[in-house]
Amino acid sequence: RIIEVVEQNETVDQPLKGKKVLVTAGPTVESVDAVRYFTNHSSGKMGYALAEVAKQLGANVTLVSGPVELNEIMGVETIHVTTAKEMYDAVTTRFEHQDFVVKSAAVADYRPKITQTNKMKKKDGNLSIEMERTEDILKTLGEMKQHQYLVGFAAETDHILEYGKSKLERKNLDAIAVNDISEDKHGFKSDTNAVHVFTKQGLEQTIPLKTKHEIAQDLWAIFNKELLGESK
Amino acid sequence: RIIEVVEQNETVDQPLKGKKVLVTAGPTVESVDAVRYFTNHSSGKMGYALAEVAKQLGANVTLVSGPVELNEIMGVETIHVTTAKEMYDAVTTRFEHQDFVVKSAAVADYRPKITQTNKMKKKDGNLSIEMERTEDILKTLGEMKQHQYLVGFAAETDHILEYGKSKLERKNLDAIAVNDISEDKHGFKSDTNAVHVFTKQGLEQTIPLKTKHEIAQDLWAIFNKELLGESK
Repeated sequence: RIIEVVEQNETVDQPLKGKKVLVTAGPTVESVDAVRYFTNHSSGKMGYALAEVAKQLGANVTLVSGPVELNEIMGVETIHVTTAKEMYDAVTTRFEHQDFVVKSAAVADYRPKITQTNKMKKKDGNLSIEMERTEDILKTLGEMKQHQYLVGFAAETDHILEYGKSKLERKNLDAIAVNDISEDKHGFKSDTNAVHVFTKQGLEQTIPLKTKHEIAQDLWAIFNKELLGESK
Repeated sequence: RIIEVVEQNETVDQPLKGKKVLVTAGPTVESVDAVRYFTNHSSGKMGYALAEVAKQLGANVTLVSGPVELNEIMGVETIHVTTAKEMYDAVTTRFEHQDFVVKSAAVADYRPKITQTNKMKKKDGNLSIEMERTEDILKTLGEMKQHQYLVGFAAETDHILEYGKSKLERKNLDAIAVNDISEDKHGFKSDTNAVHVFTKQGLEQTIPLKTKHEIAQDLWAIFNKELLGESK
């Protein structure tokens, strides 16, 4: 009976055993000059929760993290990056060997076209900062995809569901989790979140407001079930 | 002899007793939209050290702080602000009653001309972000100045000394502390700093690399000596 319980626990608790998972988290920082930079309000909490839960479920986890104020997770290999370009390089070079890739980082869409190495002197009057598009990591991964289960995130203030479904198709994702950041308790700095999940296999599920750790548990249950093709 | 020692300690340890001190610290955050923003690498450590030392020296301290990852200082009234405009309002409305004002915050010089309340959708191709100048807090204080001892900070990568002296005059300051942020161990995220101090009264002093707490002690010794007109 003891062996039976242990085996049951292993099955229940470590469904990701032997799986390779890569999670991205946090914002990226794009420098204007030696002092000034452009970034976003991502705290990295959702990504860190996804990495931590994947580890608890038995996966071999790599976390590619932008600059955040969070502690490293024991047993998770963490690669620290700053810019969208560094995030792109870190993720694309590691993609091939992964089973799951969850891109929850809020990578900058734009970066200053020119980064000055010195501190720019201010002048009277207005200033126009020219920005260029960064590499589209998720689109690149969607094109590279073979056996991997690829998950994207979207943080939206408007037309949440339409944008989410459209992104799922455009980027060739297996699943997308969309959160409505116009609500105070959802997304970014908050410890709680509520997400809408859509998958290529046709699942549509709303995960109501709960902690990011609990959201991560619900998401891994969905992703794992879909990759394994289980019906339970 | 006990009374003598106590009195001596009060003189030595609490030279700012009865003085009102306002310190600003940290960066400001200027939003592009609901998600994206411009900011700078100020950690707030130098300003928090200046506020803490002023408190230890007996002053009644108000700290106006941008978004930082530092603990509040016991016994210091801390006003939290986000934008340059909020920093301007918080400081100018409190200026009149202060004895010392030390502006160590790295306030944004520019902010996006338009802040979108929703999340801007990305598009193909480049983007030009129009920026406008923020209020010049130090210049405003220099114009409002009556009895106050006003201190500015400058973080520079080039022509450190010329820029510092020029800023002292242009902004009608009593003192300026300039640090060379092109050096790794000076300024911003670092716990150490090295500054050049210039005062209206003609003092020129280099404070070599030491902790920000020690730099704060040296700076308060200079400022206090100058305001009191003491020669010791």
